[in-house]
Amino acid sequence: MKNPSATSSGKPDNWVDIIEVGTRDGLQIEAKIIPAAKKIEIINAMIDSGLRQFEVTSFVSPKAVPQLADAVEVMAGVKRRADTCLMALVPNVKGAERAAATGLDAAVLFCSASETHNFKNLNRRIQDSIDGFAPIMETLQQAGIGAVGAVATAFGCPFEGEIETVNMLRIVRAYVALGIDHLTLGDTTGMATPNNVRSTVRMLQDQFPQLKISLHLHNTRGVGLANVVVGLEEGIRRFDSSVGGLGGCPFAAGATGNICTEDLVYLLAESGYETGVDLRKSIDVALMMEQALEKPLPGQVMRAGERLKLHPSSAVPTAAG
Amino acid sequence: MKNPSATSSGKPDNWVDIIEVGTRDGLQIEAKIIPAAKKIEIINAMIDSGLRQFEVTSFVSPKAVPQLADAVEVMAGVKRRADTCLMALVPNVKGAERAAATGLDAAVLFCSASETHNFKNLNRRIQDSIDGFAPIMETLQQAGIGAVGAVATAFGCPFEGEIETVNMLRIVRAYVALGIDHLTLGDTTGMATPNNVRSTVRMLQDQFPQLKISLHLHNTRGVGLANVVVGLEEGIRRFDSSVGGLGGCPFAAGATGNICTEDLVYLLAESGYETGVDLRKSIDVALMMEQALEKPLPGQVMRAGERLKLHPSSAVPTAAG
Repeated sequence: MKNPSATSSGKPDNWVDIIEVGTRDGLQIEAKIIPAAKKIEIINAMIDSGLRQFEVTSFVSPKAVPQLADAVEVMAGVKRRADTCLMALVPNVKGAERAAATGLDAAVLFCSASETHNFKNLNRRIQDSIDGFAPIMETLQQAGIGAVGAVATAFGCPFEGEIETVNMLRIVRAYVALGIDHLTLGDTTGMATPNNVRSTVRMLQDQFPQLKISLHLHNTRGVGLANVVVGLEEGIRRFDSSVGGLGGCPFAAGATGNICTEDLVYLLAESGYETGVDLRKSIDVALMMEQALEKPLPGQVMRAGERLKLHPSSAVPTAAG
Repeated sequence: MKNPSATSSGKPDNWVDIIEVGTRDGLQIEAKIIPAAKKIEIINAMIDSGLRQFEVTSFVSPKAVPQLADAVEVMAGVKRRADTCLMALVPNVKGAERAAATGLDAAVLFCSASETHNFKNLNRRIQDSIDGFAPIMETLQQAGIGAVGAVATAFGCPFEGEIETVNMLRIVRAYVALGIDHLTLGDTTGMATPNNVRSTVRMLQDQFPQLKISLHLHNTRGVGLANVVVGLEEGIRRFDSSVGGLGGCPFAAGATGNICTEDLVYLLAESGYETGVDLRKSIDVALMMEQALEKPLPGQVMRAGERLKLHPSSAVPTAAG
């Protein structure tokens, strides 16, 4: 099994892992089905841009998310490098069995900190989700697949409002009991704020110092990258993001795009962090995705270009004085 | 004269001033001319939302910026409260004379830290701009109008790249020599980053500890609110923003919208700061501006709504399981 954190071992102190979730969280809400071959082309271009870690698809019911029904085909088509780590959502044993045949590096188990959202998303109560983890883990372990534990609506639920810390904690404890050392906090509908990112991260780091924590942020209310700044200050060095800022959850009202990969790469590079990602190539991938979806994506750097992309002064008029 | 900082005196320690620039920086790039009566209606609604400070228009040549040719009419129509502070760009003595008759509270003098941008924007060299400040100030003082000094392209120029600190410093020194104690750092084309916001603010605070510094940020590369977080950490308590994220400079290639007022209000409120602005009313103003311009604005909170605006769980489907 390839540990999802192994890809960042031996990296410089200022390294930040970016997990590209565009072909999973990004595409799942899109009505236009992208053919598997095009997804593979895009993921291969992402790998070429320097991205190493991917939440590449989801082994959910093909009926629930038709966009991701091609999970096995996509997994088979990606040209992995030695440092490529492919992850995917795995909601149940059936999904783990499908994933087992694909050479998945790590499965993302998940459960919502909100009863209502968990029911909407998975059609079961939190405790039923927790009870389901062990048989999934057994299947994964037999196949040599690692695991990451995700908590959805970790910073608030669009149905319930503030989430109950006790729910968050029993999910995290369940993951820890299963030997999972990677936790992803999902800001499913963009309710994370500088204050609740800071307090939640501190609370979890305090109670589970061994856990590696990733932030999965959405830009629903415009503060996604502001929350990244706060996460970095709290020692977080793993962030999920989506090419072009694609994204949204079909089972959560008001959900919009993940934070945008190119904008995140730009922010991190300009803040003195290394990610291994070439910003120009990353912009090209976003433009490729935009073409595939035939609609504009919310990414900003993909429009504006690199910071020091200079314009000829003849390109704009001089003021009339 | 009403000092632009006087409006924040007696405010709590966690107070942050928001200067609404939507009807100036926001509208100046828009091709569709908004009638003065509609602008006045929008500004009055902004005042009702709790906004106190405005860069309301610009006394530039009506030929250069037709959208702002109605500066005098707009100034006359706004229903000011006791704590309302109306500011406007004043590029020259002629502009100061026009402004004098309107009861403007404070004029914003400006000069770019980039020779090329200053030439594009004002058709003159930096030194000529600096030499022009004294006669403007004289006209303003005779009319009892205060002054704020702005430095455009303070964090980078789309034509020249990094700006020269020496240019920044001679402009700031010129303002200080004229008795100006308010400085606005303009991120004209969204080249501000956490690192250069931090270093520039520290450098200026160190050299000019008496100056009150505002940040005028654009969201061109998606990091506008991330830069606000850094600015707050450096003690900045004044930010320019634009209703709905409108904005851009017609004389700077690649310029896009200012940071968005509602998103800023949301970020500040969720970070424990007070602004006096009612978020819901602020969203209504953004929707009003959107209707006036007949095009979608980039603001995020105006779409997503307040953080704890709950959705009925019946509004979305339950997963197929």
